[in-house]
Amino acid sequence: MMNTDDLKYPGSRRIYVNGTLHPSVKVAMREVVLEDSLFPDGTKERNEPVRVYDVSGPWGDESFSGDVEKGLPKLREPWIAERGDVEVYDGLTGKALRGKGGKPVTQRHYARQGIITPEMEYVAIRENLGREQAFKAVYDRFPSEKSRPQEAQEVLDYLGTGMGRPSDLEKEPGFSTRSLTQRARLDYQHVGESWKGGRMPAFFTPEFVREEIASGRALIPANINHPECEPMIIGRNFLVKINANIGNSALGSSIEEEVEKLRWGLHWGADTVMDLSTGKNIHRTREWILRNSPAPIGTVPIYQSLEKVGGMVEHLSWEIFRDTLIEQAEQGVDYVTVHAALLQRFVPHTARRMTGIVSRGGSIMAKWSMIHGRENFLYDHWDEICELLAAYDVGISIGDGLRPGSVADANDFSQLAELEIQGDLTKRAWDRGVQIMNEGPGHVPLHLIRENMSKQLEWCFEAPFYTLGPLVSDIAPGYDHITGAVGGAIIAQEGCAMLCYVTRKEHLGLPDREDVREGVVTYKLAAHAADIAKGHPGAQVRDNALSKARFEFRWEDQFNLSLDPHRARAFHDLTLPHAGAKKA
Amino acid sequence: MMNTDDLKYPGSRRIYVNGTLHPSVKVAMREVVLEDSLFPDGTKERNEPVRVYDVSGPWGDESFSGDVEKGLPKLREPWIAERGDVEVYDGLTGKALRGKGGKPVTQRHYARQGIITPEMEYVAIRENLGREQAFKAVYDRFPSEKSRPQEAQEVLDYLGTGMGRPSDLEKEPGFSTRSLTQRARLDYQHVGESWKGGRMPAFFTPEFVREEIASGRALIPANINHPECEPMIIGRNFLVKINANIGNSALGSSIEEEVEKLRWGLHWGADTVMDLSTGKNIHRTREWILRNSPAPIGTVPIYQSLEKVGGMVEHLSWEIFRDTLIEQAEQGVDYVTVHAALLQRFVPHTARRMTGIVSRGGSIMAKWSMIHGRENFLYDHWDEICELLAAYDVGISIGDGLRPGSVADANDFSQLAELEIQGDLTKRAWDRGVQIMNEGPGHVPLHLIRENMSKQLEWCFEAPFYTLGPLVSDIAPGYDHITGAVGGAIIAQEGCAMLCYVTRKEHLGLPDREDVREGVVTYKLAAHAADIAKGHPGAQVRDNALSKARFEFRWEDQFNLSLDPHRARAFHDLTLPHAGAKKA
Repeated sequence: MMNTDDLKYPGSRRIYVNGTLHPSVKVAMREVVLEDSLFPDGTKERNEPVRVYDVSGPWGDESFSGDVEKGLPKLREPWIAERGDVEVYDGLTGKALRGKGGKPVTQRHYARQGIITPEMEYVAIRENLGREQAFKAVYDRFPSEKSRPQEAQEVLDYLGTGMGRPSDLEKEPGFSTRSLTQRARLDYQHVGESWKGGRMPAFFTPEFVREEIASGRALIPANINHPECEPMIIGRNFLVKINANIGNSALGSSIEEEVEKLRWGLHWGADTVMDLSTGKNIHRTREWILRNSPAPIGTVPIYQSLEKVGGMVEHLSWEIFRDTLIEQAEQGVDYVTVHAALLQRFVPHTARRMTGIVSRGGSIMAKWSMIHGRENFLYDHWDEICELLAAYDVGISIGDGLRPGSVADANDFSQLAELEIQGDLTKRAWDRGVQIMNEGPGHVPLHLIRENMSKQLEWCFEAPFYTLGPLVSDIAPGYDHITGAVGGAIIAQEGCAMLCYVTRKEHLGLPDREDVREGVVTYKLAAHAADIAKGHPGAQVRDNALSKARFEFRWEDQFNLSLDPHRARAFHDLTLPHAGAKKA
Repeated sequence: MMNTDDLKYPGSRRIYVNGTLHPSVKVAMREVVLEDSLFPDGTKERNEPVRVYDVSGPWGDESFSGDVEKGLPKLREPWIAERGDVEVYDGLTGKALRGKGGKPVTQRHYARQGIITPEMEYVAIRENLGREQAFKAVYDRFPSEKSRPQEAQEVLDYLGTGMGRPSDLEKEPGFSTRSLTQRARLDYQHVGESWKGGRMPAFFTPEFVREEIASGRALIPANINHPECEPMIIGRNFLVKINANIGNSALGSSIEEEVEKLRWGLHWGADTVMDLSTGKNIHRTREWILRNSPAPIGTVPIYQSLEKVGGMVEHLSWEIFRDTLIEQAEQGVDYVTVHAALLQRFVPHTARRMTGIVSRGGSIMAKWSMIHGRENFLYDHWDEICELLAAYDVGISIGDGLRPGSVADANDFSQLAELEIQGDLTKRAWDRGVQIMNEGPGHVPLHLIRENMSKQLEWCFEAPFYTLGPLVSDIAPGYDHITGAVGGAIIAQEGCAMLCYVTRKEHLGLPDREDVREGVVTYKLAAHAADIAKGHPGAQVRDNALSKARFEFRWEDQFNLSLDPHRARAFHDLTLPHAGAKKA
């Protein structure tokens, strides 16, 4: 059994913020409670609690007495029922919901009709971190609020030449310390940089969320058969999200062990979890995970399809894949990776690569195409896949089976040819109401990252980009969570919506719990750095609060505001273990 | 005593490459010996050894039987003597060398006269990693070698729109897999991106090194009293360098313990080491370190000055500082941080900051100025400092005492005002023959990093930039080596010449050996990622060799080519410990 004390964030409490359009919406957040500031003259100043994004779900509520056998409360059940467009039927492995007559029941479908769902309001409140008003940041160089958008744009155009020479400023009549913006305040925030048409608002309204989903720039992965899922949004005009993979062992895990892995991943901050389990118990493992996950669960259905044919790629078929998709959609999987853009004619080009095809899904489909001399059946059945998944609101992550596996192979013909097809498939999926994102590299050197983002935005019509890494070098096995976080921070800053984490065991072995912790926290850090850079209105306040605590030697607050309070405290205590050393 | 087995790189051997202009130049390198490639048809292919940059000095030569009491061989002694411009004299704590009559004996002084020193040739060979010919990379998009420079520039201008649509390429007559560049070859390298006038050559000549030093764009920190030092260069048109700080404990360390810390730092790849020791034994500790360091040693002399006045800032004076400078110059310190650009009038502006002044040297000088109501004495005596140090060839790193200590304070008036003064001081130091670099931030969000580099290049006349971090967020105590490496990779890509590492104990406590390892390797990784991005001609071959080994399941070669072979192997063996699992 796990020690659930370690799953608690110290100095924190759970709060809920209510919806207004939909009163049944109650958005969970964590609030870090801070000490007062004590000044040398004996005066005190109260520090407001800081609200942080919380993906731990009911598990993070002390009043919840979870029972993994029963699963989590079905938060979304009434919302789904109220829409009146679903039917219960006997699915492949039990009763399931789907859109009446197989019609789309996707968030995209509603958004296009102008409907603001409870899921959309939930997301708006969540992204605002509970703030009820538009963000009022203090911008150093743009004192006039009225004209900010235009001026902010100018800074973007001339980034790097913001402030003139300080010696010129000093010559201005009346220049004094008071001419400068006060930075010692919690709401000080730098102007963000939105790249290529990004539009980060000062406040997230439900209508803004709806527009982003309707346009395809964002998705809320939320299968109607996963009512336990707390809505979250993936899109470049929102907080950057991260995904953690868990691969469950094939044999002998207990229900508690499987759920424990999930809970640790969420505890450290994974926004979605991909279940890459193999072996005989795939279905049962996934059932445990889905019923106990407040976060969207993604899968790669070709893996289970391959299990069904005993690992013999040549025996794969559209029918086997289709049935697997249905099985997973009925269970509640929120998004699936489908390697449909890897066309048969691209495969020979990988022979000139340093590292060929490194994606497992990509290798499977390439091999199938080569054996049968036929086009990838996922491509051939794309419209059918989309129609099928729209009836459950399963999102599709279009796989990048030809992603580069080395710096040398970055941005080559194979990779970019597949990306272009991802764009075609994106449009076709949107026409069928499906929520879409595109998967990206891989191994890419620093200076070629922007090309990936730029082409994806153009060729895939601003659909959300979801990238692995990118790893900016190949020479750091054992440190590839860092190699990946460097690239991840950069691509996220330029508009990548979600990062798939890499652990330090990448290329070497299977991650254990400490590897998952290190990987998730590292990627949270990369995502957060990008949030600040993009000017997400809720991002910098946590940095400000922590820095203020640091400046005032409020050690407990520093620990509690950090991404990994347990580690921060442990490292501190190695040098200065006494309680007195934690006070000013 | 240390286990010196752990200080060996597996599968590696020491080699030396001889100079031609100066036959006494013998440049140490490490060569990683690789296994043959074995193909399914039974054929073999030989893999050439890969040469990597090696900072371990004589300690990395198996035939060297070091004796820390005696110190390292005095490699540069004959070079210094042959120039005939130094004199031996009775210094403050023993015999020392200085320029005859106090005249400059700096590498800059020689370079300006058109003299190529042995140090300059050493550096050229070192940066080429022993290659004897110009780098011939295969550029994907620029098949014509003749026109490359112009075209390479075009790629920079249009970065992000390199390759057109693959579907258009496919329509071209005769398009086939053979139309694409072969990437599965060790000399494949991406075109680099040089920012704002960087000029990375395909081959480093001694004359190129001389030009870069004469222009001030680079420096070779090499005090004539540190003849044990193997020359290395800091400049943006060379490999990005990293510095590791060691802070020795005040009491009771043995000579072996101090040298051991140094050796571990160098083993993992620190290019220079700053000795930030405090306490009573500063002088003796530094002596041990200098006599046993093949790498340049930097210090912050104001720290020792403060020890001399019992920690009472108000008692500091120019005379005490000057004598400390002379003492350290006579001992052999290769570069010193001097916080001379922090002017009295800038200090009040820090009151509006989130975290005030966080640099220790900056705090000392600000406090001194405030107590005495006088200008910073380091500024007032700048020309004297320069003249004094030029007679030993001690480089100056102009400190950034007002660097931001939080994301909120990044790029504010105080920071930039000091940077502008750094530029003035740079010019004055150059006029006196001194080798110079500038120190930079600090805590800076991702999107504001470029402004730092841009202004430093402009205001400081392209003098090398040496930055701490920059840390791109404040909320990751315990992970700040990563927060810093993300910013470090970016600023290095844009032209920062040297990165000062940050350990995961930053803000929390004192680093131990594992923290130093994690910090140095993480920063090597960041620096290397930038080397690839900038197109350093020797950078990508190691990635290519490792990726090829990975693709061929040559596990031993993967480990041996990695930045931390011991960790790579250990992680691998946790999952697949059997020897058989290390063969294809």
